[in-house]
Amino acid sequence: MTHLLLRRADVDFLLFDWLGLEGLLEHGKFADHNRETIGAVLDLSERLAADVFLPHYKACDSIEPTLDADGVHVLPAIGDALRQYAELGLFSASFPVDLGGFGLPFTVSATSYAYFAAANISTSAYIMLTGANARLIAAFGSPAQIETFALPQIEGRWFGTMCLSEPQAGSNLGDVQTRAVLDGQDDLGARYRLVGNKMWISGGDQDISENIVHLVLAKVPDADGKLPSGTAGISLFLVPRTLPDGSRNDVVVAGLNHKMGYRGTSNCLLNFGENGGATGWLVGSVGDGLRQMFMMMNEARISVGFGAAALGYRGYQHALAYAKDRGQGRTRPDGPQTPIVQHADVRRMLMAQKCYAEGALALCMYSAMLVDQDEDADNAALLSLLTPVTKTWPSEFGLAANDLAIQVHGGYGYTRDFDVEQLYRDNRLNPIHEGTTGIQGMDLLGRKILRDGKALEILRGRIAATIEAARGQAGLSALAMQLRATWREIDSTIQLVRQRPSARVLDDATSFLFGFGHAVMGWLWLDLAVTATGALPRLSGEPLNVAQGKIAACDYFYSYELPKVSSWLAPVKDDYDLTKAAVDYL
Amino acid sequence: MTHLLLRRADVDFLLFDWLGLEGLLEHGKFADHNRETIGAVLDLSERLAADVFLPHYKACDSIEPTLDADGVHVLPAIGDALRQYAELGLFSASFPVDLGGFGLPFTVSATSYAYFAAANISTSAYIMLTGANARLIAAFGSPAQIETFALPQIEGRWFGTMCLSEPQAGSNLGDVQTRAVLDGQDDLGARYRLVGNKMWISGGDQDISENIVHLVLAKVPDADGKLPSGTAGISLFLVPRTLPDGSRNDVVVAGLNHKMGYRGTSNCLLNFGENGGATGWLVGSVGDGLRQMFMMMNEARISVGFGAAALGYRGYQHALAYAKDRGQGRTRPDGPQTPIVQHADVRRMLMAQKCYAEGALALCMYSAMLVDQDEDADNAALLSLLTPVTKTWPSEFGLAANDLAIQVHGGYGYTRDFDVEQLYRDNRLNPIHEGTTGIQGMDLLGRKILRDGKALEILRGRIAATIEAARGQAGLSALAMQLRATWREIDSTIQLVRQRPSARVLDDATSFLFGFGHAVMGWLWLDLAVTATGALPRLSGEPLNVAQGKIAACDYFYSYELPKVSSWLAPVKDDYDLTKAAVDYL
Repeated sequence: MTHLLLRRADVDFLLFDWLGLEGLLEHGKFADHNRETIGAVLDLSERLAADVFLPHYKACDSIEPTLDADGVHVLPAIGDALRQYAELGLFSASFPVDLGGFGLPFTVSATSYAYFAAANISTSAYIMLTGANARLIAAFGSPAQIETFALPQIEGRWFGTMCLSEPQAGSNLGDVQTRAVLDGQDDLGARYRLVGNKMWISGGDQDISENIVHLVLAKVPDADGKLPSGTAGISLFLVPRTLPDGSRNDVVVAGLNHKMGYRGTSNCLLNFGENGGATGWLVGSVGDGLRQMFMMMNEARISVGFGAAALGYRGYQHALAYAKDRGQGRTRPDGPQTPIVQHADVRRMLMAQKCYAEGALALCMYSAMLVDQDEDADNAALLSLLTPVTKTWPSEFGLAANDLAIQVHGGYGYTRDFDVEQLYRDNRLNPIHEGTTGIQGMDLLGRKILRDGKALEILRGRIAATIEAARGQAGLSALAMQLRATWREIDSTIQLVRQRPSARVLDDATSFLFGFGHAVMGWLWLDLAVTATGALPRLSGEPLNVAQGKIAACDYFYSYELPKVSSWLAPVKDDYDLTKAAVDYL
Repeated sequence: MTHLLLRRADVDFLLFDWLGLEGLLEHGKFADHNRETIGAVLDLSERLAADVFLPHYKACDSIEPTLDADGVHVLPAIGDALRQYAELGLFSASFPVDLGGFGLPFTVSATSYAYFAAANISTSAYIMLTGANARLIAAFGSPAQIETFALPQIEGRWFGTMCLSEPQAGSNLGDVQTRAVLDGQDDLGARYRLVGNKMWISGGDQDISENIVHLVLAKVPDADGKLPSGTAGISLFLVPRTLPDGSRNDVVVAGLNHKMGYRGTSNCLLNFGENGGATGWLVGSVGDGLRQMFMMMNEARISVGFGAAALGYRGYQHALAYAKDRGQGRTRPDGPQTPIVQHADVRRMLMAQKCYAEGALALCMYSAMLVDQDEDADNAALLSLLTPVTKTWPSEFGLAANDLAIQVHGGYGYTRDFDVEQLYRDNRLNPIHEGTTGIQGMDLLGRKILRDGKALEILRGRIAATIEAARGQAGLSALAMQLRATWREIDSTIQLVRQRPSARVLDDATSFLFGFGHAVMGWLWLDLAVTATGALPRLSGEPLNVAQGKIAACDYFYSYELPKVSSWLAPVKDDYDLTKAAVDYL
């Protein structure tokens, strides 16, 4: 196919050869599915992404959302695409059958999503937000709330948002000032009136769905009217744009953010309760807001990873196609121009992109499989450990891949005649939203490693198994030893960090995350190479190329990328005090 | 001042404390100048940049050049700014007095340029191109050519371009197909008719100067009409938009490139000779084109470094101001919000930007000083060695600084309400134009190191002197030892590369350039710290903060940045064959 989104033979390798998805399908929960039904979903996704999402990729960048008295208007093609997506039942695909869904594994629905994200990330964002919103309501809402607010989203008629940040409260949600005051009780539960401002609300308003369900974090004041401090006092509310009685809720778009990329997704400052209070219904209990929202955030973080990986992947496909086509330089004066894919430095940029993009997709799929198997406590713990990596590594290195895709195109890549500059601008959002890279570093090192070493032990067990398998395969045993040494360095770094005073223990969490992330990817690339090597004898044609490509990329990763782990760990180990210099010296 | 461009106390530290510019001014060539006259030029530059170049920064991004039957139209504010620049005599500042200039050292005119580049890189590009164009004519043109084509540019009435690339000839200029046929001889020298297409011509057309002087690379066919192959057959021609008799030359704008950033600088596909041949005059001799053009390219490469450094620098100033102002998180629940500049991870991002931006500016100024002292053969050799680093390191790490400036701003940084996203988009051009990073790597390793080790020896001598000076200073001696070890690793890597088969010797030139560039910056940061440490006792106020900042940044650089050298050299040392994998495996 010529759409240059995800390569299907690669997706099949990852799902079936590497992750053994068919084993999951034997499982009770997913027993209605088999390789053929999954294949049909992916076929459908690929076709719809290429035929309907891709064509307006440029248009939704150049024609930004606008705001007038009726609210926000987005490019009509975005609405058309999402209606077709809904009509094919794809919004509901990963929901259980009793909620009107297909009961697809998350691994499959997320892979399906990756096709759409590759084709058009800002149109696809509405899908991601709506699915995560409905899933949260399905998990924590009352039956009436599910019926009223989740089902229309599962059908794709209503869309959802997540309203966390406020102008003064970004990374620190403890500072949320939106106030929710009890107003009564009805069929939908405890009813509140909300007053406050919410910033950075993706899909916060638009004219392409019948209604919008805002999931809003707010605080319930005490008897003195004082808001509880910190994150413990945060509650979660369902605030629809249009109320069940058909009247308009008290939610106003105060402004649109004009972004560098990701432009088709409207991004709003919303004012709740300018006229007395927006009506919202409490989800779960007072004070349960952040815990519940984290379920949505965790899914959103994995989805951000998928989106970032997909952007990196598409950029790589574009760079590869360009490099095969573009001639520059000659091996002899009168000979033909050499395709630049033959030049060593272009090859370096392509191999790096391959490692970043295909590796990021593999990481996301691995984590998605853990979601599907999280009834196993080990898997749940490992998922929790890997979530900050799954959010960050694709975001940082998918962007790095897009940077290299521009470079492979030379001056052409810097122009809007090609897609790669937009992929780069779109992808730059991913290290910021759903928790910045810095926040993910603190989550990884603080919550997921230092607080309890159990998850790391599980990870180390799986890495040991990969090393063991690789040691038996010619060509991989040296890499296995390199991986072992790398992880010993991670371990000893953690030991050093544990000995620090608690106030400084997270200072270098971001550098640690970079080192840890590359070490995780070293493990996954070796694991991919082990699977590929084992599969070689029975493969031919494109699947053989895919498997050989995994082995080649693994080899490259160990030469060019894995050595970077030490350079990121160096400042973590040397206990550099980042705040020692006076602010005046900056 | 509140313009957030370059910090004047830093510029003064670099010029006077570190580089010892006053010593240069004692020299015959520059004896008309002193610290006061230089200071007045910088004052003027700072004021004009802030008052006239900065205000249309956003406008020249959102209102792109347009093309109609009359040619290209750019934002009028760009023309207004450049006219004021010309009226103040700044176009001529670095030209000798006999050409109507002030005879300023290049170090000073380039530093002046950095203010304008920080304020508005795409308006400033016309300055850079015009100055380099006129300088080339002054060096190689006949007196009549200088009179006719260089002087109007030195006065800032005409602007210049450099026409090298063609659609099929980018990095490989040997493939230039533009054809120049002798047409006669007149007062301006040998007159030719040129036919061909030139791509990526910055300032290729516009409506803000009285005329445009294109410096065009073309080939003169032999008796059989065949063009010579390779770069040896390239000649250089002066092709004005409007001919001396007032008629329009046969040069047509075939298209405008629409770029991700740097938008105020029109960028054109030019067709020469659609109607019989564009009139051009030969500069120097047939076949001398590339050698002459390289003089312009070398100046352009250093200027690209200055521009990239300036963009990084302005982004850093914005991020620092934002970080001091923005509160997030609290040290106690009821306490005030902590300014994010106090958070370790934000500090890491600020220190990295400081190292990248201030370090890049220092590197550029160091190279500019070598230009001013290049009658000394050692300086000329060192300049030649450092030119690819001076072009690349600021381009790559100025961009990395802008990436971090966005990250410090969080979601705000991703919006067009702040400047940092545009700085990032603008800066992304710099690793591409005037020779990509890959081309610079081959220039460094192939031409500047492997062909003749002399320049590297000179560099090693200067590094040894810095190490010696640092060893005597408390707090710097450990860093001196670290620098020595780093350069031993560079040396041993070069030895390994020398032993390779010649066909593969440049395969990893880009990775080498990254490692070498950071090692050079390690040297310069230590040298800056040596100067700063020595100056501390006599400083107070802002100059003291600047000096303390250099010491702090050096310290940071050695902990966080210098360890990366090994990770870039690892694949160079292990002799990884980048083209070993089949293209089908990509």
